[in-house]
Amino acid sequence: MAIPNLQVALDQSSLSDALGTVQKVGEEVDIIEAGTILCLAEGMQAVKCLRALYPDKIIVADTKCADAGSTVAENCRAAGADWMTAICSATLPTMKKAAEEISELQVELYGNWTYQDAEDWLEAGISQAVYHQSRDALLAGETWGEKDLTRVKRLAEMGFRVSVTGGLEIDTLPLFQDVEVFTFIAGRSITEATDPQMAARKMKQTIREIFGASS
Amino acid sequence: MAIPNLQVALDQSSLSDALGTVQKVGEEVDIIEAGTILCLAEGMQAVKCLRALYPDKIIVADTKCADAGSTVAENCRAAGADWMTAICSATLPTMKKAAEEISELQVELYGNWTYQDAEDWLEAGISQAVYHQSRDALLAGETWGEKDLTRVKRLAEMGFRVSVTGGLEIDTLPLFQDVEVFTFIAGRSITEATDPQMAARKMKQTIREIFGASS
Repeated sequence: MAIPNLQVALDQSSLSDALGTVQKVGEEVDIIEAGTILCLAEGMQAVKCLRALYPDKIIVADTKCADAGSTVAENCRAAGADWMTAICSATLPTMKKAAEEISELQVELYGNWTYQDAEDWLEAGISQAVYHQSRDALLAGETWGEKDLTRVKRLAEMGFRVSVTGGLEIDTLPLFQDVEVFTFIAGRSITEATDPQMAARKMKQTIREIFGASS
Repeated sequence: MAIPNLQVALDQSSLSDALGTVQKVGEEVDIIEAGTILCLAEGMQAVKCLRALYPDKIIVADTKCADAGSTVAENCRAAGADWMTAICSATLPTMKKAAEEISELQVELYGNWTYQDAEDWLEAGISQAVYHQSRDALLAGETWGEKDLTRVKRLAEMGFRVSVTGGLEIDTLPLFQDVEVFTFIAGRSITEATDPQMAARKMKQTIREIFGASS
């Protein structure tokens, strides 16, 4: 198994807050995400700034695109995003059109998706998926369980590079020990830590410790 | 049956283009939507400008929110939106949290939603739904059919105020003659018309003609 990437999700509601945060952690992580909250609050200006500040990092625009895939993807690419996300309930044509305009499209798994959908995405050449514990579901008391891990494993076996996200902390990473995770996405456990840089560094180190031995 | 509203969806990729368009049609319609493309491109600045220019119209932020409902809704409300949208694959906690922060939440129906989901939304106090023909699905040759109309009817019978959108033109409006539509959402059939103001006015007039008689 390859060592999973670490991605920081910038989910601030203002560009200035996001920039203040990313300055502390941008160099520590592999992938920098302009989160949905940030994209909706500040638009593609946020992606442009991240691209300008981190020319060598992978930049993801977490648009959760549901329609008009072509235009949304074009705008993301023009702003400098490498990857963008589409919601799983988007139609296949929407995903295909988005995928044509951006280096890579990631499918965000929320709600009622099926493995048949997943087969269709793969067949359309879309091989990245993001498995979520919804932030709001976590607040409502749900958490990572065997059901989630089984799904992530199955998606990986199907051929997806699977990113996982939602309430990930240093303590929850070992849960994924036997799971082929492509990327761990962390938001507030890094950005709202007392020392965000140290939090990112520790998470990266923990990932290396857990997954390094078996690589 | 009440006479359906007319909503214009502003799906330009720049604020200046959106403002140039809305200046021609804003007074003709009942509801002005900052489309997803526009929200993602320009952020809440777009909603703020629409609010400033049209203090008396209903302003919708078509965020298609999938997570972090509370924050996204707070940002929409702060920018001046009356309503916002959530994607149907969002979890119920996400929808509930969003609904707490904004006057009204609309559920956007894409992909695999079920009538059981719809019951849950109603139970959570969410009684607006947006029934779509995806723009990309339309481009792929799909169109409005009996299956769609039946679903819209059933949702209306369940108690939803249903907006319909996707490839609506003057010619397609009569299809909905016997359907209780809350709002017709038109995008490019208005915004890309040679004379957008006249296009909006004609659509409004056609709606009155079709639905006025039976009201």
